[in-house]
Amino acid sequence: MTTTGTPSGSSVTGRRPFGGVLVPALTPFKADGGVDQAAFLDFCRWLLDQGANGLAVFGTTSEANSLSLAERMALLELLIDNKIPARTLMPGTGACSVPEAVQLTKAAVSAGAGGVLVLPPFYYKNVPEDGVFAYYAELIERVGKGGLRLYLYHIPQMSGVAITPAVIARLLAAYGPVIAGLKDSSGNWENTERLLREFPDLAIFPGSESFLLASLRAGGAGCISATANFQVNRIRKLIDTPDGEARDRLNERVGRLRAAFEKVPLIPALKAAISNRFGRDSWRILRPPLRELSDGQRRELTDALAALDEAG
Amino acid sequence: MTTTGTPSGSSVTGRRPFGGVLVPALTPFKADGGVDQAAFLDFCRWLLDQGANGLAVFGTTSEANSLSLAERMALLELLIDNKIPARTLMPGTGACSVPEAVQLTKAAVSAGAGGVLVLPPFYYKNVPEDGVFAYYAELIERVGKGGLRLYLYHIPQMSGVAITPAVIARLLAAYGPVIAGLKDSSGNWENTERLLREFPDLAIFPGSESFLLASLRAGGAGCISATANFQVNRIRKLIDTPDGEARDRLNERVGRLRAAFEKVPLIPALKAAISNRFGRDSWRILRPPLRELSDGQRRELTDALAALDEAG
Repeated sequence: MTTTGTPSGSSVTGRRPFGGVLVPALTPFKADGGVDQAAFLDFCRWLLDQGANGLAVFGTTSEANSLSLAERMALLELLIDNKIPARTLMPGTGACSVPEAVQLTKAAVSAGAGGVLVLPPFYYKNVPEDGVFAYYAELIERVGKGGLRLYLYHIPQMSGVAITPAVIARLLAAYGPVIAGLKDSSGNWENTERLLREFPDLAIFPGSESFLLASLRAGGAGCISATANFQVNRIRKLIDTPDGEARDRLNERVGRLRAAFEKVPLIPALKAAISNRFGRDSWRILRPPLRELSDGQRRELTDALAALDEAG
Repeated sequence: MTTTGTPSGSSVTGRRPFGGVLVPALTPFKADGGVDQAAFLDFCRWLLDQGANGLAVFGTTSEANSLSLAERMALLELLIDNKIPARTLMPGTGACSVPEAVQLTKAAVSAGAGGVLVLPPFYYKNVPEDGVFAYYAELIERVGKGGLRLYLYHIPQMSGVAITPAVIARLLAAYGPVIAGLKDSSGNWENTERLLREFPDLAIFPGSESFLLASLRAGGAGCISATANFQVNRIRKLIDTPDGEARDRLNERVGRLRAAFEKVPLIPALKAAISNRFGRDSWRILRPPLRELSDGQRRELTDALAALDEAG
């Protein structure tokens, strides 16, 4: 698994720049609270070396909304300046305010990012579908369509704002291939299945490897999944292996690891495991409102990973 | 009603810099999408002239989270540079990221703002109480306690993150008078009543004038209410009038106006009414995900206001 950042062949067309496994890379912090840029860069390189097809930096798992806009701009620049291939990047650039979403999206497009993954504005709740459409439309108009490949980020249990099929259809009618895909983190397979059926031109990624195989079989593009921070090589292998016993065994293994992480709060658990893997304490640090695992939770995680023979 | 920006006498002590009616001032936009700074400044002056005890700028009604941090910093500077008394200001300075909350809060404290109204970080849901505490604690430690008077902003139906009595008690134990008060926009009177009982030293403001009288009678500090954008003089009068028939009539009138606005989406309705009042079309403009009233909604509002003999 030495291929670095090249999308898996099967799911790449002109309309589908991304396919395979993308990692919502965790963000390490220093003891003084700042972002540990050196550790972040090393980690992004390592993920690509491990077989990641892309890096969905600034995602939910990345604590992106706990970073300032200035910090996200600086990290994007860091990756580009240090030769992380821009085409492998799908940064999260959504924000509650259009001006900030525009600023970060413009920076990503200028840098040559393969795509951007865009949350709806997530402060107001029960907003009209027309308002969700207007946000994306204004963003696209102000960024410009040239070079923009926008992936919609549907995660209603966190954002409180759904990206409905009606909104997707309206955006596709208005902007065609600029609307490149969607990450469905709803955890609702019926929704993913419906989107795969109704929008065959979109690159659709479930937000968890639980639905990876079912999704691939129904025309999905891969997955963008939290545990890819820990097991990206295995998920990549699962995607690249043809249907059969070997694939089923891999799938079971991938699922068991996810279940182990989900016994405790997921993002702190992933940071604890990565901290152990690299022997770097700073990886454990989270920004409020997220908190480190308690001692008890850490033991629970360690035991669960040990039972699977994983160094966690 | 010519008093400008002085807190109503009854509810002011060393621990209670604010009392009376505070207005979460609407934010006007220009046709090009930018903030209409001149209209905003005029409006803030007008609100104080009408009897507002304070201006809770950058609130939910202000579409504050649809503004960039840079826009909020610029508006704060605008008000201060143009002699809006800093002691009358209680800007909303909360953010999903601690660094941005720190930056805006520091600016407010340096400007001499009477207080700041601080949302919890509102992206992640089901966060631990310890994480909510940690956010406020880190903000206070990094801003510094000198001159900081922090009002907690409890609006769980929008933020998705509650500020529970346990968190309030822990913050009071750690930071004493720095924790000056709380705005309870939950719309849940039982919660407001409990907070008034358990935290007598806090200046507690219901987020709606519906609970204003009950709250004042139970030791509340006043209210911070959306419709104060339209009827601040009447709410002020209601607060300043002693219990009796005249007060009851005022209360009924205030409530009927609120009910008229609530027939349609509240923030767009207030902007439409203010647009009519000042004959300035730009007041109608909202940022996504909020949308202007439809023609039908506008007619409904106009009729409802006309039935109350209000120029809307």
